[in-house]
Amino acid sequence: MKKIIDLNSDLGESFGQWQMGNDAAMLNVVSSANVACGFHAGSPEGILKTLKAAKSNNVVIGAHVGYPDLVGFGRRNMDVASDELTADVIYQIGALNGLAAAIGSQVTYVKPHGALYNTIAHDKRQAMAVIEAIKAIDSTLILVALAGSQLIEWAQENGLTVVAEAFADRAYHADGTLVSRKQAGSVLHDPVEVAQRMLQLVNEGGVISIEGKFTPIDAGSICVHGDSPGALAMAQQVRELLQQNGVEISAFAGDK
Amino acid sequence: MKKIIDLNSDLGESFGQWQMGNDAAMLNVVSSANVACGFHAGSPEGILKTLKAAKSNNVVIGAHVGYPDLVGFGRRNMDVASDELTADVIYQIGALNGLAAAIGSQVTYVKPHGALYNTIAHDKRQAMAVIEAIKAIDSTLILVALAGSQLIEWAQENGLTVVAEAFADRAYHADGTLVSRKQAGSVLHDPVEVAQRMLQLVNEGGVISIEGKFTPIDAGSICVHGDSPGALAMAQQVRELLQQNGVEISAFAGDK
Amino acid sequence: MKKIIDLNSDLGESFGQWQMGNDAAMLNVVSSANVACGFHAGSPEGILKTLKAAKSNNVVIGAHVGYPDLVGFGRRNMDVASDELTADVIYQIGALNGLAAAIGSQVTYVKPHGALYNTIAHDKRQAMAVIEAIKAIDSTLILVALAGSQLIEWAQENGLTVVAEAFADRAYHADGTLVSRKQAGSVLHDPVEVAQRMLQLVNEGGVISIEGKFTPIDAGSICVHGDSPGALAMAQQVRELLQQNGVEISAFAGDK
Amino acid sequence: MKKIIDLNSDLGESFGQWQMGNDAAMLNVVSSANVACGFHAGSPEGILKTLKAAKSNNVVIGAHVGYPDLVGFGRRNMDVASDELTADVIYQIGALNGLAAAIGSQVTYVKPHGALYNTIAHDKRQAMAVIEAIKAIDSTLILVALAGSQLIEWAQENGLTVVAEAFADRAYHADGTLVSRKQAGSVLHDPVEVAQRMLQLVNEGGVISIEGKFTPIDAGSICVHGDSPGALAMAQQVRELLQQNGVEISAFAGDK
Repeated sequence: MKKIIDLNSDLGESFGQWQMGNDAAMLNVVSSANVACGFHAGSPEGILKTLKAAKSNNVVIGAHVGYPDLVGFGRRNMDVASDELTADVIYQIGALNGLAAAIGSQVTYVKPHGALYNTIAHDKRQAMAVIEAIKAIDSTLILVALAGSQLIEWAQENGLTVVAEAFADRAYHADGTLVSRKQAGSVLHDPVEVAQRMLQLVNEGGVISIEGKFTPIDAGSICVHGDSPGALAMAQQVRELLQQNGVEISAFAGDK
Repeated sequence: MKKIIDLNSDLGESFGQWQMGNDAAMLNVVSSANVACGFHAGSPEGILKTLKAAKSNNVVIGAHVGYPDLVGFGRRNMDVASDELTADVIYQIGALNGLAAAIGSQVTYVKPHGALYNTIAHDKRQAMAVIEAIKAIDSTLILVALAGSQLIEWAQENGLTVVAEAFADRAYHADGTLVSRKQAGSVLHDPVEVAQRMLQLVNEGGVISIEGKFTPIDAGSICVHGDSPGALAMAQQVRELLQQNGVEISAFAGDK
Repeated sequence: MKKIIDLNSDLGESFGQWQMGNDAAMLNVVSSANVACGFHAGSPEGILKTLKAAKSNNVVIGAHVGYPDLVGFGRRNMDVASDELTADVIYQIGALNGLAAAIGSQVTYVKPHGALYNTIAHDKRQAMAVIEAIKAIDSTLILVALAGSQLIEWAQENGLTVVAEAFADRAYHADGTLVSRKQAGSVLHDPVEVAQRMLQLVNEGGVISIEGKFTPIDAGSICVHGDSPGALAMAQQVRELLQQNGVEISAFAGDK
Repeated sequence: MKKIIDLNSDLGESFGQWQMGNDAAMLNVVSSANVACGFHAGSPEGILKTLKAAKSNNVVIGAHVGYPDLVGFGRRNMDVASDELTADVIYQIGALNGLAAAIGSQVTYVKPHGALYNTIAHDKRQAMAVIEAIKAIDSTLILVALAGSQLIEWAQENGLTVVAEAFADRAYHADGTLVSRKQAGSVLHDPVEVAQRMLQLVNEGGVISIEGKFTPIDAGSICVHGDSPGALAMAQQVRELLQQNGVEISAFAGDK
């Protein structure tokens, strides 16, 4: 049976005159685009361009929702009240869905960004606020969540479809958790090694942990980056090695 | 035959901790709520509360789209490029529609706000950018435009349904244009006079102009304000006098 | 010997068209004005008006610096990196000092706002970032800090002059800490009781704690509020009772 | 006698995670740095880094004040009321001066940015609002203005010191005005030609206009760009050719 995996990446992160990333190149690599919604990055005209390019490349669109912190790029923890967070997430999904509708496309999944992503992996209050937002606006939207996180269970208990994701360039502990960025060896830099790990992930269902043992990672999507020439090359390497080994790159949300 | 008119007002204009207007009271007066979308006013949680209250009062929801100018409350002309303006308007409609969907409601019309409203009444480039936005996201959305403005023709030529509106508290010239706010007598302050003018508008299709002659005003909606106790009292007076004289207050967009 | 105490309040918190508080009335009550600097509240033209009014009332000006979170009014904890926080605080003090200079006045103290105020009372990393900011821009600026907080010691160790403040309408524990707002009885509502407590504070150096015992509070300033008619009346009551009992209301920073 | 000219460029235009320009390289080229103040570009931490680098390179610091339009990068005309514009400009100068003071430096001049720059070259109302701002905060600040513009006269009449600037890469009409960017040939692309024109400007006091005649341009500063590798190379070429021909590159504001 043919193996299938989704590749996702953060796109649409330019803001006004400020460019970020290489959306055109990444849309040839990924099957799913996490598109910024204007709170941590992305301005409407730039988002619209990214959505058009995604559609042209048959790349599925997800709402990359974040905290309202443009200057901090959504990477700073914020103690947002539940009602506010729920409304913020609905607003962002709605805005992106409006732009997608304007080009005859649609949002099919939600992936929280940055500090919000990290927080709701373990903070139930904020996690529930995000889950409530998705349920309220469109309960068929898929939630992309950190493999192994508590968020997966909370979302499923509340009726959401969840896709777990692995990070191509990150090291894992033997218990399936990510090695903290503060620890040496947490981020992998060799494109060949990274690609081979992801091939192992798809074929064997896990990777070798930083402690040296095979660790199961149950992931339906792999997150790759494109925010530097090196990151782009690594993402391309992952795609190529997977395809050369008969793995199909296809969006988990492709049927919607 | 029973006369029917719509009353609309700008709502949802609070922002974070800053309150503005009296949405609860005005939702007992109007049949259509122009709800701020976050660019000139409105933050997601507050917008959501206004939408819920509008739904409870059977008040129809419109997207009150504006320039991205929070500190200026969207009241300052901005020379926004067409592509940017189109994307900005789509984004705002989408965001509001997302919040409306989350409470089981929907946006049924679009009314530009402040400087954008005034500019597109006569500036074809910006007007077309707004028209393109509405057509792109949902061409069944009704556009509310200044009675007598060129915008009405441009929008109709491009296939949009338009509802013209009159301003309850504003004086008109004999040619049907608004008297400039810079001119004495441009704004009317007597609730009884204002209410009687609006009754005349509904029954006779026009008002007495500042030059003293009856002037036809072809309007399907009347804009009233609620941003001060006096404004609220005037709006209530308009509603009461119309109803006492057998006029039905009902949203133009009520059938959607 | 005559007793002297400073009364301070948060002012300049309007933003664009959104009004907040009653600055004109409060400037007759307080001796020191904590003026918003644009990050959590305050827009330049409104700030300038407040500064002019403060000068007319011989009220001393302090920079009420906050997190960059307008929609959250600076009341949400944010995990801002030290370098960013230091630069943010310098920027705000500089902006306010520029506006003050433009009317022939100056900033004489700094009082952090909201979540930043609460965080640096105990979080040494963020506290040091604020202390570094003040030292860098003008080490003669006085820091207003929560009476009994660790911030006082950290700031003094680093060479800053500190004035501790008490909150007129808050209950204290026997150890001199504030009773959490989540606890019943944490906020006092009776103007007469509040005024009498503050008279006791000035005359006896402490108040009766929620546990019922006299608790020393070493404070050079009392924070009063003006964001509601009730708050304003309470602030006026505090001032009047103090003055009736021979206490002089005078800015700690009045000599600069 | 040795010829002296100032070279200025727009710097500090990064915002949060978004990088713009190559400040490090440009600080080896210019003698004056127009540093963004946070309204159209620039966030406090990034501004502070640029200020430190400018100080290390003995480059003089100017406040590059703009409209409050981050997403439009201050390039869109805004109809800002005079009181608001004055306060906005004071705020920005103050904020930058605070950051400069924090590193032992200071702001010595003001150069409006983008649409504000273009507007006040001919719009007296907005020009006067900016002039009033400078006079209010520090009347010794030099104003950098478009050579040949009415702003120069207005500012001088009001007691400001003005330095006129020429644009290295722009064509001029025979009357000394800039050729509109909408016209072919308005922007020059050949670094050698541009450098030779600037040498002619310094030595002969003018350039060959697009109509083919020598046109006097009375400029004390030349604006160069660094926002692309090509722009940087052109700026370096201008500096080198001037220096090779005995022209000293030195800030007009260097003596402050």
